[in-house]
Amino acid sequence: MNRESLIKQIKKKKSFLCVGLDTDLKKIPSHLLEHDDPIFEFNKQIIDATKNYAVAYKPNIAFYEMLGPKGWESLQKTLDYIPQDILTIADAKRGDIGNTSTYYAQTFYDTYSFDALTIAPYMGSDSVLPFIREDKWAIVLGLTSNAGAMDFQNQKLANGKLVYEHVMERCAEWGNEGNMMFVVGATRAAFIADLRKRIPNHFFLVPGVGAQGGSLSDVAEAGLNTDIGLLVNSSRGIIYAGSGKDFAVKAEEAAKEIQSEMEKILLLSGLI
Amino acid sequence: MNRESLIKQIKKKKSFLCVGLDTDLKKIPSHLLEHDDPIFEFNKQIIDATKNYAVAYKPNIAFYEMLGPKGWESLQKTLDYIPQDILTIADAKRGDIGNTSTYYAQTFYDTYSFDALTIAPYMGSDSVLPFIREDKWAIVLGLTSNAGAMDFQNQKLANGKLVYEHVMERCAEWGNEGNMMFVVGATRAAFIADLRKRIPNHFFLVPGVGAQGGSLSDVAEAGLNTDIGLLVNSSRGIIYAGSGKDFAVKAEEAAKEIQSEMEKILLLSGLI
Repeated sequence: MNRESLIKQIKKKKSFLCVGLDTDLKKIPSHLLEHDDPIFEFNKQIIDATKNYAVAYKPNIAFYEMLGPKGWESLQKTLDYIPQDILTIADAKRGDIGNTSTYYAQTFYDTYSFDALTIAPYMGSDSVLPFIREDKWAIVLGLTSNAGAMDFQNQKLANGKLVYEHVMERCAEWGNEGNMMFVVGATRAAFIADLRKRIPNHFFLVPGVGAQGGSLSDVAEAGLNTDIGLLVNSSRGIIYAGSGKDFAVKAEEAAKEIQSEMEKILLLSGLI
Repeated sequence: MNRESLIKQIKKKKSFLCVGLDTDLKKIPSHLLEHDDPIFEFNKQIIDATKNYAVAYKPNIAFYEMLGPKGWESLQKTLDYIPQDILTIADAKRGDIGNTSTYYAQTFYDTYSFDALTIAPYMGSDSVLPFIREDKWAIVLGLTSNAGAMDFQNQKLANGKLVYEHVMERCAEWGNEGNMMFVVGATRAAFIADLRKRIPNHFFLVPGVGAQGGSLSDVAEAGLNTDIGLLVNSSRGIIYAGSGKDFAVKAEEAAKEIQSEMEKILLLSGLI
């Protein structure tokens, strides 16, 4: 899905919500465990319940990989089930030497037909470049929302920049606003505002709203650009909003609530 | 496999060779494609041919993941086939927020029973700590052997250290020499010597000897410590030493040649 289609979807749904499909056998309602493929059954019902409010789905690959080959089958079925006009992001945080990154790109872009993939940038240009394609999205980790982000990303370089600023500015030279996004954690809205000045046009994928403490309105104020430029992810807050047989209804309510808030923000910002 | 057993194996085999099982359907001899599982058949013959000369096997997970669920089955069969006294390393370069890293650790340490896993450190402490277990090895990317290593790892911090020095020193506070190693590229022997002073006791896993240009004797001189402390990886130079029906014989010759050189180095260094 290209940038134009993504923006069109956002305006149509009045939402920049990404739903994280971090589907965990230990957390899904117990009645689903009777199904042949409880992971897919859960995802299917979550997708049905939230597809009118979400413009992206982001399965975290760890949750599928841990189940062995069967987990990858659940992932494939989930992807096949997601409507074509919704962006699909493999949250896999891959990155390796060029030849190997090319294979990771083929895996997620071609074998599994994801639109986008998250990338760990530590190994530099030749680990990032193979993920750049005009019809796909390399979503590079910039500033993450976890406590450990302080350990390396937030170190000051001799040139005065912070490591994550340097990483994002260099990567933005390799990928343009039509094929690259950045992960920027919501727990630090002030940082997002500063990054928006440095990286004006690329989309930011923002995790950490809700459970991890970031406020949606703060993130939007700091991160929106004239093309919207934001995808805000919620995982647990939506998919585990309920724990009983009505989990999909609860998920729908939670997604709708965030979408309503996003609609207000987009209206107030004059973006729709 | 613990540190004591690993060192014992190295001394017994007079080898610190790790064979990279980067098994690629496009590169294996064509006669193997008739088998039900050509990837496993290739690995099986490579393992039979090299197991007397190698102390570790390192499948790069990208090569298996790209084949879908079947690739993970080939990987599982390969792991089951590797003798128990040889270290198994998942070259997966994983790293995520704590909860998710825990799942990646379970996947590779428990579901697939690997002894070790390579880790991308960009997300900091809570992304690295879940991989630390007393009976397993977290192998953290320090200074990699690719050109892109210059982009971020080699940047100078305001405190005077290079990013990779800071990363390795901090990680060495989280994992000790019995549960953590570092990836240090062979293309930069002078850097290895300096790192050995900073990190005296941890094992270094060194890729990039041979095809990528590093010299084994330079690497050994720079990186050996009193407990040996080195694993040197060769992938293509061994597994694709031949391309015909005699590929396993050629792989054995290539592995034996490296082992012989390692034996000389260990003898000259007084380590065996």
